[in-house]
Amino acid sequence: MTRRAVCPGSFDPVTNGHLDVIGRAAGLFDELVVATGTNPSKSRMFTPEERLDMLITAVEPWPNVRVAGFGGLIVDFCREIDAVAIVKGLRGATDYEYELPMAQMNLHLTGVETVFLPGAVDNAFVSSSLIKEVASFGGDISGLVPDFVAERVAAKLAKSRG
Amino acid sequence: MTRRAVCPGSFDPVTNGHLDVIGRAAGLFDELVVATGTNPSKSRMFTPEERLDMLITAVEPWPNVRVAGFGGLIVDFCREIDAVAIVKGLRGATDYEYELPMAQMNLHLTGVETVFLPGAVDNAFVSSSLIKEVASFGGDISGLVPDFVAERVAAKLAKSRG
Amino acid sequence: MTRRAVCPGSFDPVTNGHLDVIGRAAGLFDELVVATGTNPSKSRMFTPEERLDMLITAVEPWPNVRVAGFGGLIVDFCREIDAVAIVKGLRGATDYEYELPMAQMNLHLTGVETVFLPGAVDNAFVSSSLIKEVASFGGDISGLVPDFVAERVAAKLAKSRG
Amino acid sequence: MTRRAVCPGSFDPVTNGHLDVIGRAAGLFDELVVATGTNPSKSRMFTPEERLDMLITAVEPWPNVRVAGFGGLIVDFCREIDAVAIVKGLRGATDYEYELPMAQMNLHLTGVETVFLPGAVDNAFVSSSLIKEVASFGGDISGLVPDFVAERVAAKLAKSRG
Amino acid sequence: MTRRAVCPGSFDPVTNGHLDVIGRAAGLFDELVVATGTNPSKSRMFTPEERLDMLITAVEPWPNVRVAGFGGLIVDFCREIDAVAIVKGLRGATDYEYELPMAQMNLHLTGVETVFLPGAVDNAFVSSSLIKEVASFGGDISGLVPDFVAERVAAKLAKSRG
Amino acid sequence: MTRRAVCPGSFDPVTNGHLDVIGRAAGLFDELVVATGTNPSKSRMFTPEERLDMLITAVEPWPNVRVAGFGGLIVDFCREIDAVAIVKGLRGATDYEYELPMAQMNLHLTGVETVFLPGAVDNAFVSSSLIKEVASFGGDISGLVPDFVAERVAAKLAKSRG
Repeated sequence: MTRRAVCPGSFDPVTNGHLDVIGRAAGLFDELVVATGTNPSKSRMFTPEERLDMLITAVEPWPNVRVAGFGGLIVDFCREIDAVAIVKGLRGATDYEYELPMAQMNLHLTGVETVFLPGAVDNAFVSSSLIKEVASFGGDISGLVPDFVAERVAAKLAKSRG
Repeated sequence: MTRRAVCPGSFDPVTNGHLDVIGRAAGLFDELVVATGTNPSKSRMFTPEERLDMLITAVEPWPNVRVAGFGGLIVDFCREIDAVAIVKGLRGATDYEYELPMAQMNLHLTGVETVFLPGAVDNAFVSSSLIKEVASFGGDISGLVPDFVAERVAAKLAKSRG
Repeated sequence: MTRRAVCPGSFDPVTNGHLDVIGRAAGLFDELVVATGTNPSKSRMFTPEERLDMLITAVEPWPNVRVAGFGGLIVDFCREIDAVAIVKGLRGATDYEYELPMAQMNLHLTGVETVFLPGAVDNAFVSSSLIKEVASFGGDISGLVPDFVAERVAAKLAKSRG
Repeated sequence: MTRRAVCPGSFDPVTNGHLDVIGRAAGLFDELVVATGTNPSKSRMFTPEERLDMLITAVEPWPNVRVAGFGGLIVDFCREIDAVAIVKGLRGATDYEYELPMAQMNLHLTGVETVFLPGAVDNAFVSSSLIKEVASFGGDISGLVPDFVAERVAAKLAKSRG
Repeated sequence: MTRRAVCPGSFDPVTNGHLDVIGRAAGLFDELVVATGTNPSKSRMFTPEERLDMLITAVEPWPNVRVAGFGGLIVDFCREIDAVAIVKGLRGATDYEYELPMAQMNLHLTGVETVFLPGAVDNAFVSSSLIKEVASFGGDISGLVPDFVAERVAAKLAKSRG
Repeated sequence: MTRRAVCPGSFDPVTNGHLDVIGRAAGLFDELVVATGTNPSKSRMFTPEERLDMLITAVEPWPNVRVAGFGGLIVDFCREIDAVAIVKGLRGATDYEYELPMAQMNLHLTGVETVFLPGAVDNAFVSSSLIKEVASFGGDISGLVPDFVAERVAAKLAKSRG
């Protein structure tokens, strides 16, 4: 039996914190599908295509990880690809409280489990939103995201400033 | 590749909350080893042998779950049996804050991951210590532990009262 | 002396989680007034009138519960109807931290108390916002809200899609 | 119908934080029974009789508050005296996480509700255990407990030092 | 060596809770710079100039406190003025979880420390956002902000209602 | 004016987590006094003298840090040596909730402030109790405490096993 798990997120953009969780989760399941929502949203820095594109490059180190977009409920996507679990990285306790009702709702709706992996200690403070805020004020995000992602964030910010 | 996980605990005694987590974790890995510490401790209601014995009966429904005792660090046990992960059920956020440093320490010591499964909603309040407190004051614990466990708790309490 | 309490909320829409808290609170006070804000807001799915209308139907099982709209500060409404307490259902600890300053502010402003009731375990994950998100992606919300509410959510979503 | 609530605790000793919660809860129910466990325990500073005695004096300002000891499960005591609710004061979110499983267990066992009152802001840091620690090192606890309680703590400490 | 700390915030408007933290922090460092962001933002009640102006009046009691605006990352401002620490007041544990990643990011970016001061107990529930909400519904905010701030909030609200 | 702060703890034994906080706090004040309680306690691994001795060696890198024992309330010690603040390292939010009432009590008793420093990310999971548990089961604690401390823990464990 092949055990497949899904690691969902907006990955706007993917960070070294995400990649740490992805790499560790890849060791726990036969196949890991990193999935990002494709609904258009004005509040994102990157389009769904750009986010998928960055993810594809970023997950290259792990042969059993692939990338996908999904459009509706994450549990419907899990059912489609026959996944046994959703994997989520956690920072602190507040994170867990935020994720818990969604995990319970997903278990209620389709029986798909959510497993939580604690974030690695040295990436504990890295989030996509903080990365974008720091970069937008000219702060240095190298070492917190892959180098090619840092470049795309810089390019995006340069473009938005015209 | 066989993926093996360990679900550690004192199981003093095993509750329906534990069994819910065990049953769900059994669906996520090829093999699940429910492991209980065998260090003698005065603060337990049941001896290590009694706790193992109850666990063996309780996990019978799941063919890929087996039971074991361990004496030292849980990570050493994980390495011995070649387990990729420790599985822990979580109740609330405080639980997570308590478990987090141990998970990070275990990852630091040996690279073994800890994955957290949220407890099922209807067992959210069931813990071994609360079960023992309720039973010791004559409260009804049926439905919260397997029937044979409720009987053993009653027998143990009757004996301790002489 | 008649003791009256107020259970405020946006109830956009009322869920089985709300009704569980309402039914239990109805047993603690002589009269319970379920109150929903009537300030127009673009971020709601239902108008104040629609929300009041659904509440009126939903609280029919409890003879000492009535429904009202209010326009300003909840403490002013409490004073108007001579209520001794505000009743709030709680999910996790983060919920409590969020509600606490408001409870303390309300006590400071008018001396009206806020009492917290823990949400029932089997409804722990049900919130209006999660219900709307699930329904908007075609998920099944039956059993999580009254049947007539599920129908109105479906109708509202059908209409908004034109 | 008379609505009776129970405010349980060890009250070892009763503090101004407790009395703040008791006074406010007394306004929410027809009768409030402040109940303290009478099981002998070596870890207490005061005997059950001493704790009851201090409580009787301390609750004199409220005509609808009375004091009682109880020996087994608090829910059995609630059933005996026909109480609709247990009232608990809360400090922070961790307090709530600690109390929640007991509240849910009590609701499961007998249907008795637990309502939580946030502690008054100016007493937020006062607990029996901190009071005893401060007093044992010669710190000044006046203003944090009733004056007669401060005297009894001082007498108890003087006696234990022989 | 002169030790300088920065107390950043939006101060929209400054409250007695802020001033309590500012006054206490002023006793811990040789110089305290209260700094507010000057980026224009539609979601503020007051302009950067108005916020600075109110702060200047409010910090008059402390000779070693001065006020400044800043435009980019707070850590760049700290470096510019050679500050050793950022000072933040904390309400509850959720506050801390929210502030922690930013503190760790700031330490990572420039080595500037963040120190947290617990809010004074009697101001525990006072926040700018709650102040504005209460005032907008006609509630009384005197005693929670300096008198001259209460007047400016009233004037601003009167003007916005035109 | 010389600003002096106190960093209290049991330091049983001092860890790299403690030393990270001590080193960072040393940069914030003119003088930092690391203070450990000298009351005899059976639950400690090391005697007060041993703990002081290890601290003296461990803080050698910082010229403005000195070590002291204290016997009563930490606030009395702070007053004696004219300290303006107590410094505490924090791990997670639960830590903060545990420390908060003590900080508020200390402020109430003597006006001494408590400032919290978030623990460094890479030491986040290191505590004296976890160190002792790991070492007692033969786990490797090098890198988590200074080398000479690891040796003393090993010697102490060897001795206790006879």
